[in-house]
Amino acid sequence: MKFCSECAHPVQYEIPEGDNRERAVCTSCGTIHYTNPRIVAGTLPVYDGQILLCKRAIEPRKGFWTLPAGFMENGESLEQGAARETLEEAGIHVTCGQLLSSISVPHISQVHVFFLSEMATSDHAEKTSESLEVKLFKFDDIPWDDIAFPTVKQTLEHYLNDLKAGQIQTRVFDIQFKDRLRTK
Amino acid sequence: MKFCSECAHPVQYEIPEGDNRERAVCTSCGTIHYTNPRIVAGTLPVYDGQILLCKRAIEPRKGFWTLPAGFMENGESLEQGAARETLEEAGIHVTCGQLLSSISVPHISQVHVFFLSEMATSDHAEKTSESLEVKLFKFDDIPWDDIAFPTVKQTLEHYLNDLKAGQIQTRVFDIQFKDRLRTK
Repeated sequence: MKFCSECAHPVQYEIPEGDNRERAVCTSCGTIHYTNPRIVAGTLPVYDGQILLCKRAIEPRKGFWTLPAGFMENGESLEQGAARETLEEAGIHVTCGQLLSSISVPHISQVHVFFLSEMATSDHAEKTSESLEVKLFKFDDIPWDDIAFPTVKQTLEHYLNDLKAGQIQTRVFDIQFKDRLRTK
Repeated sequence: MKFCSECAHPVQYEIPEGDNRERAVCTSCGTIHYTNPRIVAGTLPVYDGQILLCKRAIEPRKGFWTLPAGFMENGESLEQGAARETLEEAGIHVTCGQLLSSISVPHISQVHVFFLSEMATSDHAEKTSESLEVKLFKFDDIPWDDIAFPTVKQTLEHYLNDLKAGQIQTRVFDIQFKDRLRTK
């Protein structure tokens, strides 16, 4: 941020009085511009022993497989955001069930949340503007080496482990910079 | 937002190509300015059958009681944000335990999360710059009529009910505009 979005005057980075962090402050109108972490909301759609994944059509990680998810928008709930993204990326209408994971990713200032969603039928889009391919994978066929993001990989791993153990749990944890997946 | 924070040109509200929502778009440099929901992270600090609450020193809801909580900052995890706010508002160092609640508040574009935190001792600040008073309340003495926010009230209610039932659960739900608490 270089200019005040309220008055167009250049901003200065300084710690406002009573605060303890540097903010973009307008030296003309006094507006303090805060930036905060963003939420990525998505689902883990399941149907008859299969999990739906989307092959990303856009960067980052184009061509890699992901659970349908995206940035939560103003005015919606976590579940509404997750369901909207699932419709946009996979072409399916879902209802969100249990919260599977809430994962802080501090080095990119994001929190990723995924809900379990039981698909009513096996129907889904073949592809969408955001997905090169949409596909149901049997548990044994999940393309582990081609998963787009660590939050997706760990959500899938926890879900499958919990399923074996007989109890689906809500996982709350962090992913650090060192845990990021490398492009092959 | 009236001006582009990158080039100071006036922004226009329109739906960018490939999008389905109105955004502030700079007609000069082309920057699209997104705004997204913010996360409020906090704790429910407990010590020996008592819950710590803070009387708010600042608006909104000045003079009402709240659990220590505030806006999550870039670069931190949910737990780090919750612990930092607890230190700032109540003067105690806590470790976050179980996630108690994750509550979407769509009409103000916020998500509130609260973690259970067991206090090591009963020590806490008498007051802080953000709290007129900090106090441990026995369960029966919680000032239900003077709680600042519905997310705080419902987190407290769920916790106490779960405690009676013998199992603390993670609650994921929404609070709508109609559920807001009215100033007396």
